[in-house]
Amino acid sequence: MGPRWKGKGSEAKALADPMSKIVSELCSSLIQMASHGLLSGCSVLLAVEAEQTELLTRACFGRPIIVADKDQQWFQLGLEEAVYLCHSLKCLNIVGEDNCQKDVIELWQCMKSKKATFPDFYKAYSHLRMKNWVGRPGSQYGVGFVAYRHHPSLVHSEYAVLILSEEDGDANGRLRVWSDFHCTVRLCGSVAKTLLVLSVNKNGHGAISPSCLERYLVEEHTVTRWSPEQSRENQTITENGAK
Amino acid sequence: MGPRWKGKGSEAKALADPMSKIVSELCSSLIQMASHGLLSGCSVLLAVEAEQTELLTRACFGRPIIVADKDQQWFQLGLEEAVYLCHSLKCLNIVGEDNCQKDVIELWQCMKSKKATFPDFYKAYSHLRMKNWVGRPGSQYGVGFVAYRHHPSLVHSEYAVLILSEEDGDANGRLRVWSDFHCTVRLCGSVAKTLLVLSVNKNGHGAISPSCLERYLVEEHTVTRWSPEQSRENQTITENGAK
Repeated sequence: MGPRWKGKGSEAKALADPMSKIVSELCSSLIQMASHGLLSGCSVLLAVEAEQTELLTRACFGRPIIVADKDQQWFQLGLEEAVYLCHSLKCLNIVGEDNCQKDVIELWQCMKSKKATFPDFYKAYSHLRMKNWVGRPGSQYGVGFVAYRHHPSLVHSEYAVLILSEEDGDANGRLRVWSDFHCTVRLCGSVAKTLLVLSVNKNGHGAISPSCLERYLVEEHTVTRWSPEQSRENQTITENGAK
Repeated sequence: MGPRWKGKGSEAKALADPMSKIVSELCSSLIQMASHGLLSGCSVLLAVEAEQTELLTRACFGRPIIVADKDQQWFQLGLEEAVYLCHSLKCLNIVGEDNCQKDVIELWQCMKSKKATFPDFYKAYSHLRMKNWVGRPGSQYGVGFVAYRHHPSLVHSEYAVLILSEEDGDANGRLRVWSDFHCTVRLCGSVAKTLLVLSVNKNGHGAISPSCLERYLVEEHTVTRWSPEQSRENQTITENGAK
């Protein structure tokens, strides 16, 4: 299944404006503004100006929050998004609920305490982003993320990304029985996505600090339905063997 | 979500011809013919005449097999269907691959060896059938069965039936994490079915013999998506509180 572009010209638009370039512009802009994200529950709030609003929207990070103050725009970032901007792109500092800036170890511990699966989800999210895929939350499909080739306004998401942890065994407990496979693959088919399973192998490095992340391996598997009709060696051979 | 009848007149047709009556006619006909089912892999093959063909079709047991011999019709029954006809309705004998008739204990052991989840699946299947619901295999949706109010030619299936075993813990391993719930409920919604979870509680009675079945309890839960808009206390109250 190839990308499903939204209308004519979308593919050309995406090609002319690569995601890597948008993200690098966002990065520069956030550094220049010395942006601080404010940890709040399971998200990070970020006050931005018009330029960053446009770049966050184009790069598809977080979502804008409607507030009464018309001069200030706030963005709500997911944990993985915020840590990606902070730890991988080094363009955002994150301030805790105590108003103190978190160093990298504190941030890591904090994220793990908010979400036990954070190390695996973060590895998967950054794995996608580094390949210039846009990851958005996938909980409506029972997966970790959905992955877009470019901005969701130009293209439908192509992959439903399920994140499995190789070490934790039962921790995320998915795809352990065939019926779960059937259910997931059927749902993906009905919403025109391909199931992408990202298995995070920690290689025995645990998740004590974010420096472990570099040692993690991510194995990628797509899972699709096998259709006997579409899988014959030679598609021109009919059932009785005649060409 | 109510039943979705297939076309005009289907509901009246179903009401005029209750499933309980059809099954009881099938039962009498199979007894009269002294039918023998032949265990073959994970199904039971049954040679029938025109009358039983019609009744098996109307009662929705098994599926007809196309064979070269035009005078003899064969039906392929699922394990639960065959045991239901044999053990619950007492209208079918089952013969093993060694050509010997299986007594009830042998049959039970044989089914368990073919399918580890058989005791739970059988309890769930017979639970549905005794309430005059038609159960059909549900693996295309990643569930145990789909349940029809009457014959599938008259009505769409209303429930996707997931069977959980309360004792076996991880044995069928479903709905242990939220993402599996989300995936399953979303899929059910997209195919216009309600998720029905049948939890089989063996009450400590194990699965040594089919006599245990009587002690099993089946808990029924439907799971639906909670929609804030549709779940207000008073549907006529609008967002600002005015009626």
